[in-house]
Amino acid sequence: MQIAIVLFDRFTALDAVGPYEILSRVPDAETVFVAERTGPVRNDSGSLVLTADRTLADVPSPDVVVVPGGPGQEAQMDNEDLLDWLRSADATSTWTTSVCSGSLLLAAAGLLTGRRATSHWLALELLKRFGAEPAGERVVTDGKYVTAAGVSSGLDMGLTLVGRIAGDEHAQAVQLLLEYDPQPPYDAGSPQKAPAHLVEEFRTRNRFIPT
Amino acid sequence: MQIAIVLFDRFTALDAVGPYEILSRVPDAETVFVAERTGPVRNDSGSLVLTADRTLADVPSPDVVVVPGGPGQEAQMDNEDLLDWLRSADATSTWTTSVCSGSLLLAAAGLLTGRRATSHWLALELLKRFGAEPAGERVVTDGKYVTAAGVSSGLDMGLTLVGRIAGDEHAQAVQLLLEYDPQPPYDAGSPQKAPAHLVEEFRTRNRFIPT
Repeated sequence: MQIAIVLFDRFTALDAVGPYEILSRVPDAETVFVAERTGPVRNDSGSLVLTADRTLADVPSPDVVVVPGGPGQEAQMDNEDLLDWLRSADATSTWTTSVCSGSLLLAAAGLLTGRRATSHWLALELLKRFGAEPAGERVVTDGKYVTAAGVSSGLDMGLTLVGRIAGDEHAQAVQLLLEYDPQPPYDAGSPQKAPAHLVEEFRTRNRFIPT
Repeated sequence: MQIAIVLFDRFTALDAVGPYEILSRVPDAETVFVAERTGPVRNDSGSLVLTADRTLADVPSPDVVVVPGGPGQEAQMDNEDLLDWLRSADATSTWTTSVCSGSLLLAAAGLLTGRRATSHWLALELLKRFGAEPAGERVVTDGKYVTAAGVSSGLDMGLTLVGRIAGDEHAQAVQLLLEYDPQPPYDAGSPQKAPAHLVEEFRTRNRFIPT
């Protein structure tokens, strides 16, 4: 089994590394970071660099495709080389997945048309414009398409997927090994739970949908 | 404010990137990955590479020190160059922190002697042998020392720290932006909650304390 995680300039690091840390523990799986070119890829804030070990062309038919999001996603929305690769990889994948605004790239490639899917809470409206049916859940599975909400939700997506691929017990073992027993010191992780003025502030300067 | 995240061969990626994604959102902070040499550093499973943009010597007195863990931690326990840097950085730091078995490195440097601290659940006994007082909590603060439990707990540690550095409201804004509203599909993230036979299996092949 081959798991490909796509990188592009100004991706959000945890979008990629959250699912990576979990999915790379699928037994007998090879996990590989791919990008248009091999070599360093810098994240959204510019202070983190991950290496793409293989090009998209090197990895034509992974079993699992993971597409992270991040501010750099916008510039990829009309990158036909990447969109072509997504369509072609999806044609033979077992699972096609995304975290955060990565679902906008899947949607731009035409892969989520008419499908239930999710994205960062600020990107749900845009996801709809690209033909998907936004669902306000943290991890949404529609057939072989698994999309996750904002940034940190890739951990829940990864664990969900490991359960489907390797069984509940293996997923629980991975959860125990990574001690994924979350206890955030605040309860502001969704627009339903966060202080209303913070939600409003983010909506006003929503980078996905310029006001 | 300067935040330094230490890298070494065979670190665990999420140990570093979890706190990174949160702490890099402290206002006016520079976050930098440091290692003995600049350049690529490969993780425990070998399939992920992060770049150290600066050497330890380049960053002598960060305000915040973050030490991840991972299988490679063991080889660093008698790396006097790294331990010297930890002691010297700690002498002027505002916060000295770790995730997972990173606390063993802080302890080996003599920084946790007599202090309450935590680590990966499988490493708590070893942490005690190095002079700390293990506490079975997810994030433990003792003075300026903040240690976190296994791998994924670095997210909770990061958010705790952002609250202390930049205030509750900023921490809540970061939580909302990263949509950190965890909903793991299983409830097996601690030895108290996981199926007993899985806990037993991990204890039997505990890499920290060879049986």
